Amino acid sequence: MENPFKYDSVEALREERAVRIVDQRLFPCHEEFLLLYNEEDVYDAIRKLKVRGAPAIGVCAAYGIWASVANLSSGSGLASEFDRIAGRIASSRPTAVNLGWAVERMNRCFRSALDLYGEDREMVCDALFEEADAIKREDIAMCEAIGRNGLSLFTRKGMGVLTHCNAGHFAVSRYGTALAPVYMAQSAGLEPRLFSDETRPLHQGSRITMKELMMAGVDATLLCDSMVASLMTKGEIDMVFVGCDRIAANGDTANKIGTCGVALIAHHFGIPVYVLGPSSTIDRCTPTGKDIVIEQRDPSEVTELYFSERMAPSGAKVYNPAFDVTPAEFITGIITEKGIFHYPYNFLEND
Amino acid sequence: MENPFKYDSVEALREERAVRIVDQRLFPCHEEFLLLYNEEDVYDAIRKLKVRGAPAIGVCAAYGIWASVANLSSGSGLASEFDRIAGRIASSRPTAVNLGWAVERMNRCFRSALDLYGEDREMVCDALFEEADAIKREDIAMCEAIGRNGLSLFTRKGMGVLTHCNAGHFAVSRYGTALAPVYMAQSAGLEPRLFSDETRPLHQGSRITMKELMMAGVDATLLCDSMVASLMTKGEIDMVFVGCDRIAANGDTANKIGTCGVALIAHHFGIPVYVLGPSSTIDRCTPTGKDIVIEQRDPSEVTELYFSERMAPSGAKVYNPAFDVTPAEFITGIITEKGIFHYPYNFLEND
Repeated sequence: MENPFKYDSVEALREERAVRIVDQRLFPCHEEFLLLYNEEDVYDAIRKLKVRGAPAIGVCAAYGIWASVANLSSGSGLASEFDRIAGRIASSRPTAVNLGWAVERMNRCFRSALDLYGEDREMVCDALFEEADAIKREDIAMCEAIGRNGLSLFTRKGMGVLTHCNAGHFAVSRYGTALAPVYMAQSAGLEPRLFSDETRPLHQGSRITMKELMMAGVDATLLCDSMVASLMTKGEIDMVFVGCDRIAANGDTANKIGTCGVALIAHHFGIPVYVLGPSSTIDRCTPTGKDIVIEQRDPSEVTELYFSERMAPSGAKVYNPAFDVTPAEFITGIITEKGIFHYPYNFLEND
Repeated sequence: MENPFKYDSVEALREERAVRIVDQRLFPCHEEFLLLYNEEDVYDAIRKLKVRGAPAIGVCAAYGIWASVANLSSGSGLASEFDRIAGRIASSRPTAVNLGWAVERMNRCFRSALDLYGEDREMVCDALFEEADAIKREDIAMCEAIGRNGLSLFTRKGMGVLTHCNAGHFAVSRYGTALAPVYMAQSAGLEPRLFSDETRPLHQGSRITMKELMMAGVDATLLCDSMVASLMTKGEIDMVFVGCDRIAANGDTANKIGTCGVALIAHHFGIPVYVLGPSSTIDRCTPTGKDIVIEQRDPSEVTELYFSERMAPSGAKVYNPAFDVTPAEFITGIITEKGIFHYPYNFLEND
């Protein structure tokens, strides 16, 4: 598939021993690139959502571990330094399973490299770079596979698709998860009509999804999160595509706050809801959605628009969970690189 | 009932021949009062949501007609001038039934006064003032009656109530519609716990509802519109109270965009949904919700936060309806000053 984008959200600059990301908080007005050299830079970038989207966070964490190790001052003990770096980066956000998965994969790579090369830092760093780079290449291939699987749902021209938050180009390494089939449908001349929830409080839908859809020439319309039922009443929507941050073994899915409400409303209208993501998002150690820990975020995200204009009285109490859990019975299908799975789900027994 | 507020959203200054409103667009940071002298001031205030809430718009329109007539230059023909003024004010917003209702009531008053007093402007103006003032006094009494009717639903201490948009103190003449029972419950020591949707795109929930709840000492928590399902999953909500802009004869209800989604989600959780408003909001000439005209508003409300910070790419298409229609079967009860009505509704036959 042709790449309609001019850069990726996370790229490694090998010579500079740095990870380059675009600061997604500044979209849509500014395109500002940041270089991350160590675990504090990476922790800060992930924690403050400069880089976001579960797969992109995984790639950023993996490259970030490589860069942090590569930039260590030479006196320190490699194994204990690695543990400190990996622990710090792993702790930057609690919910996204890809973060822990990528860190653990880098950890295994590090142990092997240490066995093979001992304290030869250059060789260990090369191994870490290759592993991080493999994660990114696999991520791109995975998106293309998700796209091909989801493309089968576009059965005619001009279908209306609602998406929430951003599980597209900027959330992963290139084509996105939820949006990969959309780019494939567009490329195949099927003219999908996309509708993007703005996704309060951080506006990933208006700032990021709208930006990448318009960059790729896809017909795109923005709406507030509160307008979903109205839009569905008008018959504009044929299906819902959303990403995922963690899928429990029974199919219950944690994704950006608001997803559960969209799924319940879609269910009322008989509109199918598809969750799209890499199979690494499926967490077999988490039996159901009740076992997923939901991060509560800073009240100022809700009370101060875009971190400046005050929108609620000083001292207002705020409920601000980062994610919600959509019960599996409201998810028509889960699409990974391996295929389309239908309710009821049992990821303990199949893939 | 004691008045916990220091001023009303719409007040007449008789000596000054002016209507005084507080500019609600500037909440919560500023309290700025505006004086309206003529139909253009009033049109602008209603159109731009400086005054909002169906009953408050009705009161503002009624006083506004009085002030506009009182400030006419003396040369012009009274009847044709009245028609021009009333027509201009009536056209300021298409959906709120109270606006047309108040203008029509002022029109009938004007015709009677013209019959009685001919071209004696002072007498005609006095009659118009008394009629507008009566609308406001009746509005306050109506809110108190709605409050008493709704209070019966508070069956124990500390009940959790979700509200959307603002149908409180600032939306009407004093106690509000949806919030009147809350203030009565608070006054009765029942310690209601209120949850307010922020209500994008204009943030009436975070800016106005949170302000008045906190002013009145009610326990209040703010959430984004996308967090309703999450909050209901946690069991925090016992009932939903919302206002209404127009109720069709079958009970289908137009209210602030987002209400329908909240009702569908509440229905999934088995949480009762109450629509509260004056019986004047019931439009017997509109058989069902399908017959309600929904106003589409300016895209910049969605793309530019608080009319300044750009949140979506330049040129983004936007879906921005002001209201949605909640089907009657998802409304547990409709509470007016006359009592609590339960589904199925037939407002052609009863009140």
